[in-house]
Amino acid sequence: MIDFVLLIVIAICIVALGLAAILTRNLLSQDEGTPKMREVADAIRVGAEAFIKRQYSTIAILAIVGAVAIFVVYYLTGQQAIALATAGAFIVGAACSAVAGVVAMWIAVRTNIRTASAAQTSDGKALDFSFRGGAISGLIITSMSLLGVSITYIALGADPTHTPFVIIGFAFGASFVALFAQLGGGIYTKAADVGADIVGKVEAGIPEDDVRNPATIADLVGDNVGDCAGRGADLFESTAAENIGAMILGVALFPIFGVNGILFPIVMCSLGLLASMIGILSVKGVDGADPMDAMNRGYYITAIISAIFLAGGVYYLLGATPGWMYFVLAGFVGIALSVAFLRVTLYYTDHHYRPVQDIANASETGAGTNIIMGFSVGLETTAVPAVLIGVSLLLSYWFGTMTGIPQGGLYGTAVATIGMLMVCAYVLTMDTFGPIADNAGGIVEMSQAPDEVRHRMDKLDAAGNTTKALTKGYAIGSASLAVFLLFNAYMADIAKLTGKAFDVVNLANVNVFVGALIGAMLVFLFASLAIRAVSKTAQYVIEEVRIQFRDPGIMAGTKKPDYARVIDITTQGALKNMVLPGALVILFPIIIGVTMKHEALAGFLMVATITGILMALILNNSGGAWDNAKKYIETGVHGGKKSEAHKAAVIGDTVGDPFKDTAGPSLHVLIKLLATLTLVLAPLFI
Amino acid sequence: MIDFVLLIVIAICIVALGLAAILTRNLLSQDEGTPKMREVADAIRVGAEAFIKRQYSTIAILAIVGAVAIFVVYYLTGQQAIALATAGAFIVGAACSAVAGVVAMWIAVRTNIRTASAAQTSDGKALDFSFRGGAISGLIITSMSLLGVSITYIALGADPTHTPFVIIGFAFGASFVALFAQLGGGIYTKAADVGADIVGKVEAGIPEDDVRNPATIADLVGDNVGDCAGRGADLFESTAAENIGAMILGVALFPIFGVNGILFPIVMCSLGLLASMIGILSVKGVDGADPMDAMNRGYYITAIISAIFLAGGVYYLLGATPGWMYFVLAGFVGIALSVAFLRVTLYYTDHHYRPVQDIANASETGAGTNIIMGFSVGLETTAVPAVLIGVSLLLSYWFGTMTGIPQGGLYGTAVATIGMLMVCAYVLTMDTFGPIADNAGGIVEMSQAPDEVRHRMDKLDAAGNTTKALTKGYAIGSASLAVFLLFNAYMADIAKLTGKAFDVVNLANVNVFVGALIGAMLVFLFASLAIRAVSKTAQYVIEEVRIQFRDPGIMAGTKKPDYARVIDITTQGALKNMVLPGALVILFPIIIGVTMKHEALAGFLMVATITGILMALILNNSGGAWDNAKKYIETGVHGGKKSEAHKAAVIGDTVGDPFKDTAGPSLHVLIKLLATLTLVLAPLFI
Repeated sequence: MIDFVLLIVIAICIVALGLAAILTRNLLSQDEGTPKMREVADAIRVGAEAFIKRQYSTIAILAIVGAVAIFVVYYLTGQQAIALATAGAFIVGAACSAVAGVVAMWIAVRTNIRTASAAQTSDGKALDFSFRGGAISGLIITSMSLLGVSITYIALGADPTHTPFVIIGFAFGASFVALFAQLGGGIYTKAADVGADIVGKVEAGIPEDDVRNPATIADLVGDNVGDCAGRGADLFESTAAENIGAMILGVALFPIFGVNGILFPIVMCSLGLLASMIGILSVKGVDGADPMDAMNRGYYITAIISAIFLAGGVYYLLGATPGWMYFVLAGFVGIALSVAFLRVTLYYTDHHYRPVQDIANASETGAGTNIIMGFSVGLETTAVPAVLIGVSLLLSYWFGTMTGIPQGGLYGTAVATIGMLMVCAYVLTMDTFGPIADNAGGIVEMSQAPDEVRHRMDKLDAAGNTTKALTKGYAIGSASLAVFLLFNAYMADIAKLTGKAFDVVNLANVNVFVGALIGAMLVFLFASLAIRAVSKTAQYVIEEVRIQFRDPGIMAGTKKPDYARVIDITTQGALKNMVLPGALVILFPIIIGVTMKHEALAGFLMVATITGILMALILNNSGGAWDNAKKYIETGVHGGKKSEAHKAAVIGDTVGDPFKDTAGPSLHVLIKLLATLTLVLAPLFI
Repeated sequence: MIDFVLLIVIAICIVALGLAAILTRNLLSQDEGTPKMREVADAIRVGAEAFIKRQYSTIAILAIVGAVAIFVVYYLTGQQAIALATAGAFIVGAACSAVAGVVAMWIAVRTNIRTASAAQTSDGKALDFSFRGGAISGLIITSMSLLGVSITYIALGADPTHTPFVIIGFAFGASFVALFAQLGGGIYTKAADVGADIVGKVEAGIPEDDVRNPATIADLVGDNVGDCAGRGADLFESTAAENIGAMILGVALFPIFGVNGILFPIVMCSLGLLASMIGILSVKGVDGADPMDAMNRGYYITAIISAIFLAGGVYYLLGATPGWMYFVLAGFVGIALSVAFLRVTLYYTDHHYRPVQDIANASETGAGTNIIMGFSVGLETTAVPAVLIGVSLLLSYWFGTMTGIPQGGLYGTAVATIGMLMVCAYVLTMDTFGPIADNAGGIVEMSQAPDEVRHRMDKLDAAGNTTKALTKGYAIGSASLAVFLLFNAYMADIAKLTGKAFDVVNLANVNVFVGALIGAMLVFLFASLAIRAVSKTAQYVIEEVRIQFRDPGIMAGTKKPDYARVIDITTQGALKNMVLPGALVILFPIIIGVTMKHEALAGFLMVATITGILMALILNNSGGAWDNAKKYIETGVHGGKKSEAHKAAVIGDTVGDPFKDTAGPSLHVLIKLLATLTLVLAPLFI
């Protein structure tokens, strides 16, 4: 017998997939622009598909190794009964995540050309197309995550208090794939970008997205494989990991709420998906208006409807406690935090505010001061978010305690996390909109479209940059709120395995302290390797572009550069260089856990997470601020384009590229990967 | 009755001060060079003395406020009996620290000119002078710290199990002054350096230390007030804080070792001082030889003699336990760690190894890739040190446990820390040698001495850069080993105050977790503000230098620039901009402790410390590596001076300046300040 509430989840997912199908059909029927545009778009599509194919082949091999390892671990540690189920769930999670990434990319490379074509006549229409392209990804990814968890739950589920501990395999599979997808894609996109900029803009002095630059197509491919596929996999695994973590916490409340407490997270997320659909449909591009206005309005609509659904959902599912109202308040904390994170990120990365202006000012005295100021801004951006996260955790915990049920405080933080997750599909839409608009802009530029078309796309591109920064803020905010519940899920898992309470992680214990120290270090080491991977791969790109530039025909524009060769070199470099950092974050926690056992590993996990959150904020926001300081100067201040200040700002932007698009987003995944990995491999650590 | 062992401490300190007096007399009797050299040196001396005077006046006011606050806190929280004593110890500690800073600066500004003069004829003699100048500081600072603690102990000491909890006032006073001394000096030195470089080297294209640059004297003043006075205060407070922390742990062992366990730390440090004297006297400059050889030999001599003294000291003082030999092994771990840290730092910051070469390579494609690679190297440098610290802690804890006494493990880590501290006086000597050589090089350059004299100084200056990087490695290594004992001292203090055991800091408790998150954030925020303070102050310098450069007489070399005005502007800027970051790190722990109480504060303290250690490594080592990559290119590789690669490397060096000489070293102080502050203000947090 399938629980009634699960049917709600499945029904909403089917509706969402239906809407995605309608949007896709509509979009594909649109005009594909001029032959020149199509030529560029085809090259991007072919390059992106080739990369994704090779990348996922590599990941598939790694995932099979992972699944076998899980099976062996469970089999040898006396968990034979669930060995196959956990390894199977891992494979399903990995497969679903891969599909999510592929879908995001598939849609993006088909939407970019239609957006570029629409921009020939109307910027409102261009916004509609690119936003709906994003919406298709957002709806499909979120539905896939919810359906995946629901169906795995149904397939496994004789005993609802037991199943969540097996579904963690699904979450780990999703994290595992997301790590490599985000890392590989992030390395690809930034190596191509940095390589194109250094030889093109800096050495040869030709504009961005110039057709003569052999690395431009690779750069545009990068938007799709890094931003679309990477972020798609990232938010897919967020939804999966956080839902499953909250389900584990719900098991402890089974005596009070029955199965409702366990299924609460996915039901609420499906209601959030419904709210997001309404929000998405409310967005309508208007010629001449600021695209951010329409998208912001849609966001607030989604948030308000989510809040209403949240109150109703809590009453319906958790009404068994007289203090249910406090859970509603805890959920509101999560929704409020998502809004607050967007505002703070905007403040730090938008040129209307002090930080970006400071960086632009500092560019006047050269690249040195630009970098110093940008890095200082990046470090500063940890302050308000950390306080916001701290207050949200304390507040939602306190609300949870006020419900009067045992472990209510902890469940309060879970409800807040779920509240924040409800708007996920809408945020994913805004996020995928960014690279689509960016790509469309590149197509317009490379097809040498008239100036007015370029101006239309520039406006959309700028909005895309903003939404990309904002959604990174959201991703890290939701991860931060989730980590506390994920730790506690790990501790519940260990307690279940050992049959003894595990509720103390004593930092004053020398083993735990050393674990914590190593955990913090791992974050820095991972960031180092991710950044270096971009640098190494960019080096290959730079060499190839320099070789091609020696051909006078290419610089004169009479001979077409060999785009495919650069794409191929970047693909190989990215795939090669993603393995070391990826392997590291999988092996380190296993080594710590096996040698120092579960309490030291908990210290490792918690402090790695704290450091990872803050480091991701530093990398994302400094990168975003550098990028926008450059764009701000390009509007004409501080001497405008071609000034010394602009040159300095271009260097800052280059430094920020691997920060904000490779290392930062990969840290989001790292945080959750550590949590799901320790959950799944817990039998090894006792 | 004064304990016999304390008399040993006092006697050794008197011998050390006597040696310092002889060395000083000798040094002052040396030739002061050409009139041109004297002119430059006088300007540096006057500028440095003026800054120190104004800086310490500001710090004195802050310290009086601090003392009153401590008195009030103790008085109002029922600790009236020790309110006056604790506040008094704070004042004594602050005063001793100030004297230590002043002495270091006083000697340095008198040694620089004599070193420059010696370089006219012999590089061996120049090494002797500058190294002995460093030795005078090293001996005086270490003796002052040991004498200060000993005399305060005697003055307070009716009950040996009680006194250590009062002397913490001394340690807090030392940390308090060190924070502002290092911050103010660090901001001064780098603002002048960055300002001089940007307008001089980058904009006007004149060499470093060119007489025409109005900011050069301020830059040379900075070496004295930042590196000498700042690091002097830093290592003074390290010695004080770590000794006192270990004394508190010794109280728990009173039933076994009596007063010997409590006095063990300072006795061992005084023996280390004796070993350092031997090491110092063994260093003898040889014309034409690599100065690092002589200094390294002296270091190994000091380390070996320290190890022998350690074994004897442990036997004599802690022989009451049959397992005393294990404490000797724990102490060896500390000495070995100090050697290991020097080797690792050398690897990451010396151009003979891969990291600096990678940065130099990356400079070929511009400043962007230089910065990306340098930052990646900086992040990477956390890995081996973190593992070394972790292994040392576990190993010394395990050795301590093997002694079989209760709390032996914890005391084992204390013995390891003390072992590492024994070589402190020698390390301080090497450290102060650096800025003296740097200054002498500047004097030689500005007095337009012949090329052969410059070449002699260049070699010494290069060695000085290496020793500066190494001693920063040592400073952070010893701080890292010490923090675990400092936490435990805090926990012992809280337990004494509440009368209840306090041995669990549970990271799974939501309050502790939030405290930990805020603690990690504080480190990043502090680094942000320290870096920005340099940027702000440098801006004033840049503006002033640009104004002076508009005078054609100055650029032609016919008119003397107004050095004093730049010194004055830098002084004002540095003092103004040190207040905010300084106040922040004092107020944050108080707010957390008062609102969330002692366990959350312990989480805050521990995770702030972990993050602080790693962040200091990142900042120090990336800065050192950038600096040496630039110097490496100047030897002629990658196109040598004036090449595009060199320009890129200069930008990297500029970025690294506030990292390695302001934010990084200030973080060393921050780590210990947090520990001593929480110890002293513990009555507020229960």
